[in-house]
Amino acid sequence: MIISITTDFGTRDGYVGTMMGVMAGIAPGVPFADITQQIPPQDVRSAAYVLWTAIPYFPPESVHLVVVDPGVGTVRRPIAAQTPWGAVVGPDNGVFSFLWEAASPSLIVELANSAYQRPAISNTFHGRDIFSPAAAYIAAGVPLAEFGPEVTDPVRLPTPAMEINGTSLSADVLYIDHFGNAITGIGILTWDGALLRLNPAFGDAEPLTINPARTSVRVNGLDLGPIRRTYGEVAPGMQLALIGSEGMLELAVNQGSGAALMGLKVGDRVEIVLR
Amino acid sequence: MIISITTDFGTRDGYVGTMMGVMAGIAPGVPFADITQQIPPQDVRSAAYVLWTAIPYFPPESVHLVVVDPGVGTVRRPIAAQTPWGAVVGPDNGVFSFLWEAASPSLIVELANSAYQRPAISNTFHGRDIFSPAAAYIAAGVPLAEFGPEVTDPVRLPTPAMEINGTSLSADVLYIDHFGNAITGIGILTWDGALLRLNPAFGDAEPLTINPARTSVRVNGLDLGPIRRTYGEVAPGMQLALIGSEGMLELAVNQGSGAALMGLKVGDRVEIVLR
Amino acid sequence: MIISITTDFGTRDGYVGTMMGVMAGIAPGVPFADITQQIPPQDVRSAAYVLWTAIPYFPPESVHLVVVDPGVGTVRRPIAAQTPWGAVVGPDNGVFSFLWEAASPSLIVELANSAYQRPAISNTFHGRDIFSPAAAYIAAGVPLAEFGPEVTDPVRLPTPAMEINGTSLSADVLYIDHFGNAITGIGILTWDGALLRLNPAFGDAEPLTINPARTSVRVNGLDLGPIRRTYGEVAPGMQLALIGSEGMLELAVNQGSGAALMGLKVGDRVEIVLR
Repeated sequence: MIISITTDFGTRDGYVGTMMGVMAGIAPGVPFADITQQIPPQDVRSAAYVLWTAIPYFPPESVHLVVVDPGVGTVRRPIAAQTPWGAVVGPDNGVFSFLWEAASPSLIVELANSAYQRPAISNTFHGRDIFSPAAAYIAAGVPLAEFGPEVTDPVRLPTPAMEINGTSLSADVLYIDHFGNAITGIGILTWDGALLRLNPAFGDAEPLTINPARTSVRVNGLDLGPIRRTYGEVAPGMQLALIGSEGMLELAVNQGSGAALMGLKVGDRVEIVLR
Repeated sequence: MIISITTDFGTRDGYVGTMMGVMAGIAPGVPFADITQQIPPQDVRSAAYVLWTAIPYFPPESVHLVVVDPGVGTVRRPIAAQTPWGAVVGPDNGVFSFLWEAASPSLIVELANSAYQRPAISNTFHGRDIFSPAAAYIAAGVPLAEFGPEVTDPVRLPTPAMEINGTSLSADVLYIDHFGNAITGIGILTWDGALLRLNPAFGDAEPLTINPARTSVRVNGLDLGPIRRTYGEVAPGMQLALIGSEGMLELAVNQGSGAALMGLKVGDRVEIVLR
Repeated sequence: MIISITTDFGTRDGYVGTMMGVMAGIAPGVPFADITQQIPPQDVRSAAYVLWTAIPYFPPESVHLVVVDPGVGTVRRPIAAQTPWGAVVGPDNGVFSFLWEAASPSLIVELANSAYQRPAISNTFHGRDIFSPAAAYIAAGVPLAEFGPEVTDPVRLPTPAMEINGTSLSADVLYIDHFGNAITGIGILTWDGALLRLNPAFGDAEPLTINPARTSVRVNGLDLGPIRRTYGEVAPGMQLALIGSEGMLELAVNQGSGAALMGLKVGDRVEIVLR
């Protein structure tokens, strides 16, 4: 049993510590794992991406607390859901969209039962008063159905579109990480000997096979050459495209920041030209 | 049992990890919770505020390690105290002032017993050599009285003054959080139907009742209108005043940074005009 | 049992949380301790320094996971080693050099056994696919020899040289911490009454005794006066040299940033003139 925590609270103010205090009182001894507290403020889409990359690696008995909640204090519902990688708890604002596209939850409930909330609910800190008590009670064994009525119409974000045609694949930069690597919506790509197998991560396009030797990757007028296997295939400081750790096409610079050196930002269009 | 950690060490250097190592050797298996390691360097007053917001949410068996210690290596005493939310351990420099105003400690002791310190005490890192061993030995069950003589004259910071007169309440901005929300010294405010009940958090003023519909909140020549219930009552990008998660009057911008957009900083004077 | 984590991943992206998820599935209930996730990207030398300061304070049953890995996906070996302060797991790029100079490991092995790796190994995230499973299996009791063949020629960084002659000692600034304190390669210095005993931390120079009253510390054309005992010996805002928490000569400003106020950076030459 472990409770992961993902928020946009940052690490300066003690808000995450406060939630840990609440949870330690309800589910003593359960360890915590920070996924990140540094989601850009109120950026539900980045949170949805980060959760998609991290949560599938946790054991199925985990509980995942997520508080990226621009609608706190309004009518948006607080929810919890059971997924193959554990229970998730957070606001019903689409933050679980990418995760649920990878594997549908077996049950989603609204956190309506005040028995599993703090006695006074602030209008600004549902993380402390509603979400963290729920996460801790789930960790302590309370069944999901106890928390409130089933939710059948959760909010879902539009999934990142990948465009496929005979001679090219294109999608947007989805996320830029701490190293300056730009992760794109083209994936999931896996090596199959010298070839690449593409099983689209999002949407319902058919799988296809790509010969990386006959590709060139383009972004913002730059040609990054063929898809590579490792950063080390190009000299330090040189740009490249390779398969990132989640299987998505990633634009990078060996031992440098791809985002800084190529001027990349979220939303830039990336193309794999097939020859 | 859980040990919370609050410092101004930042998260870059391994100093907090070193303290965890020391504690893991003395109290194996006790989980740690970061409150924050990002108190502004040597800012005892901000630390006192953050501890006041976070520690009351922890269970009574917790131990809270605090190292914000501009006087390290000088004569300031290292202390520990028993509070309703667990034991606290840190320098005697006023960092526990706000917490102790909320609830008096039952015992304060000086950490004088070298049996509960590391064998060699550096002049610059009492967190490692004195405070973290004390926190871990307390977590392991050593009674507070074992650590040294009682302290009856701990250092206390002046508490944040709120000025009340017939037609207005005023106080300073106490803290600006990661989101740019400015927390003021006016509180604790709780909703009582359509009215607000004010039980002063600090000092000995009498409680009073406020009709929020007949208030206007002013700061730096700006009029923020009446006290609201939720961020969502104003359009995105618009300023407002509402009750923060600790019950203090908070100045904010819906889905934005109040501090950046209104030019707020700690010490700015805020007024609620009553009509 | 505790698993410490040191990386250059930062805390924004969920990469560290992903590794915690992997480890929680293999070694349930083992607590984690962040040493730091903010090693400057791919800076193996800073990581080697930080590990040297933190790991010796952990109990011998700990496991230390280190992922600062500019060579990920290339031929550099993944390794694990047994040290007096627990097992260490990471890339064979010299990151353990300073630690191993303080105490030789009893066994170093290559992480070659795929039974203790994730089924699919990405080319960019060995932290998730090779290193964190190894750390967790070691924590779960798998003997080091199970992971692969012994390594007898691990990569070692050159150790920081200290120059000693009759009238002066000199070395470089090794590291600048979060407070702006500059830690130099001159140490380990310990107080012996009014004198200082110098047992060189690195290299094979003979120990010597220094009279601090007859020293002056110089850097970048500045004279910082004699070696002091505490920050408080000079007025706030004034520069000084003292013995840091690891016993290394440290250049600082009382209640300020030595690096900012003296313009210090890693590699600056520092001299103790003996009179």
